Amino acid sequence: MVKYCTGNPIITPENVPPLGKNFRVIGSFNPGVTLFEGKPLLLVRVAEQITQKQQGKVSVPVAEGGTIRVLDFELSDSRYDFSDVRTIRNGKQKFLTSMSRLMVATSEDGEHFTLHPDRVLMPENEYEKFGVEDPRITYLEGVYYITYSAISDYGICTMLAKTKDFVSFEKMGNILHPDNKDVVLFPQKIGGKYYMLHRPSTSEFSRPEMWIAESDNLMYWGNHRRLMGVRDGEWDSARIGVSSTPMPIDEGWLVLYHGADVHDRYCLGAVLLDAECPSKVLARTAKPIMEPVQAYETSGFLSNVVFACGCIHSGDTLKLYYGAADKYVCLAELSVPFLLKSLQEGK
Amino acid sequence: MVKYCTGNPIITPENVPPLGKNFRVIGSFNPGVTLFEGKPLLLVRVAEQITQKQQGKVSVPVAEGGTIRVLDFELSDSRYDFSDVRTIRNGKQKFLTSMSRLMVATSEDGEHFTLHPDRVLMPENEYEKFGVEDPRITYLEGVYYITYSAISDYGICTMLAKTKDFVSFEKMGNILHPDNKDVVLFPQKIGGKYYMLHRPSTSEFSRPEMWIAESDNLMYWGNHRRLMGVRDGEWDSARIGVSSTPMPIDEGWLVLYHGADVHDRYCLGAVLLDAECPSKVLARTAKPIMEPVQAYETSGFLSNVVFACGCIHSGDTLKLYYGAADKYVCLAELSVPFLLKSLQEGK
Repeated sequence: MVKYCTGNPIITPENVPPLGKNFRVIGSFNPGVTLFEGKPLLLVRVAEQITQKQQGKVSVPVAEGGTIRVLDFELSDSRYDFSDVRTIRNGKQKFLTSMSRLMVATSEDGEHFTLHPDRVLMPENEYEKFGVEDPRITYLEGVYYITYSAISDYGICTMLAKTKDFVSFEKMGNILHPDNKDVVLFPQKIGGKYYMLHRPSTSEFSRPEMWIAESDNLMYWGNHRRLMGVRDGEWDSARIGVSSTPMPIDEGWLVLYHGADVHDRYCLGAVLLDAECPSKVLARTAKPIMEPVQAYETSGFLSNVVFACGCIHSGDTLKLYYGAADKYVCLAELSVPFLLKSLQEGK
Repeated sequence: MVKYCTGNPIITPENVPPLGKNFRVIGSFNPGVTLFEGKPLLLVRVAEQITQKQQGKVSVPVAEGGTIRVLDFELSDSRYDFSDVRTIRNGKQKFLTSMSRLMVATSEDGEHFTLHPDRVLMPENEYEKFGVEDPRITYLEGVYYITYSAISDYGICTMLAKTKDFVSFEKMGNILHPDNKDVVLFPQKIGGKYYMLHRPSTSEFSRPEMWIAESDNLMYWGNHRRLMGVRDGEWDSARIGVSSTPMPIDEGWLVLYHGADVHDRYCLGAVLLDAECPSKVLARTAKPIMEPVQAYETSGFLSNVVFACGCIHSGDTLKLYYGAADKYVCLAELSVPFLLKSLQEGK
């Protein structure tokens, strides 16, 4: 039911020019997706590490004061825990070994993409010190809005940015407090209000689940309500979060979401929300609509991951540009009638 | 520098009528504070447990469908962890052994209070299943607004309610997503906007610190910015959160806050915010302005805790109605000139 592009992965880390000669691109993945001037445009998360030259050291990039600074750690420094390849911890603080920025990629045929190193949403301010990640793009009232995760010492915030040309980006501030990830705006007002889906990340009481909130102006958000939860023993038992921008179809709002189990295996599912009252879940797929099965999905920086941030909806087809194994951008096609059937069965 | 009321504690659990004959009040503490019709009014957090009748069982109250339901657990049930007297955990879920509601208390002399069991803000909806806690009251544009923590399976939300008479309360929904505690509104607009202080509770990267946000309508909030952080090795090294409603003084906004160290010892400090730009910290006390030293503060449900949710500002004096040891309401007076001196020294 999933039609994979034979050219997968369509963007690999090797395709992406690094920030500088000391940098190494380790991942190009989890792209935001939109149609721009009639053609697919991706905002690719590009993760980079510092090329390590000295034995016994590890250096990490951080954004500070509009520039990229390099922090050096001695592997022999017992105050720090280096056991996780993704992080450096010292109990109170956590650093990321890689830093992400968001790079525009364009295509004529929807399969072969050109990366634009001069069209980048860079980590800059104090909330973005450890990078910017996992963008969702929503075309709304003539403007492209981008919601993305900003990672720093202050936690995981959601920042809103806007652009009309994908050349320059205007950052509009934190629209949610930490910790929150996987945030997307609906592409139109509903009953006079803007809506978002979001995913509070941590809680003493609950697990990371999907919530909905509303706004008058896109900047200030409230009336937060839990939309849907994890399912014990299922593929989406550990955490869930929105994947695609909500798509209006005859039956309501079609939304793709990702779910992970306790082994951090990430799959995709779908949910149908009421057209007029998007806080109402009409149907949810029982089984994954897409699982990590291809070699580029089962092995990478974080293995067994399919993670989408958006897709292009055209008639009966969704063109899904998705992140595979936290390393690649891949392309697959999903059939909307198949999704509707899966949603019906999941009821 | 702290003048304690000789009648302390001024409200004890024994003063509070329980919800029913199977209930036992274990704490009356952390009151919201305001002047109402010229006299002090408290909104006291009343925590109750189920009186245990059967050996080997523990029963906990939860709010569900507008009523209070009792859940029974067998102490021999190995799926649950009963080691913390405050909670019952099973890995994925957490229950509280007590449930809190908020009860009005009034006074003619500011020292002797009458509790009103018929004037109560009750836990009712799905976000309040495990209780409502730690209210702050802000008188704003002729209305008393109450911000309080709503605890449930969905995490720790902040709910806004309003009242004009402290007889009936109108709940206005979750103004922040989980987890967030210690939220207070400023008592007037600043530069055309409403402001709040808040405290995101958990983060992979940071510790629980104080943030500021703004709004056009009190319901929707955004432009979240970190206001001030914890201080390593100090009395406020583990977490901080706002205590009092911000008070306008000549020098700016005077705000009391609480801080805890790694031993969960809670003290009070003060911070001065810029009058026109409340996201700017002008001064912060270095040492605690109040520490748990009295017997009723050093021993209780949670020992070594002074925790304020508000005070009454009159001339050079703050009348602080505060929670002691998560058990009592106590009264102390602080001198504003002393606070200003401490703030100056802390610079």
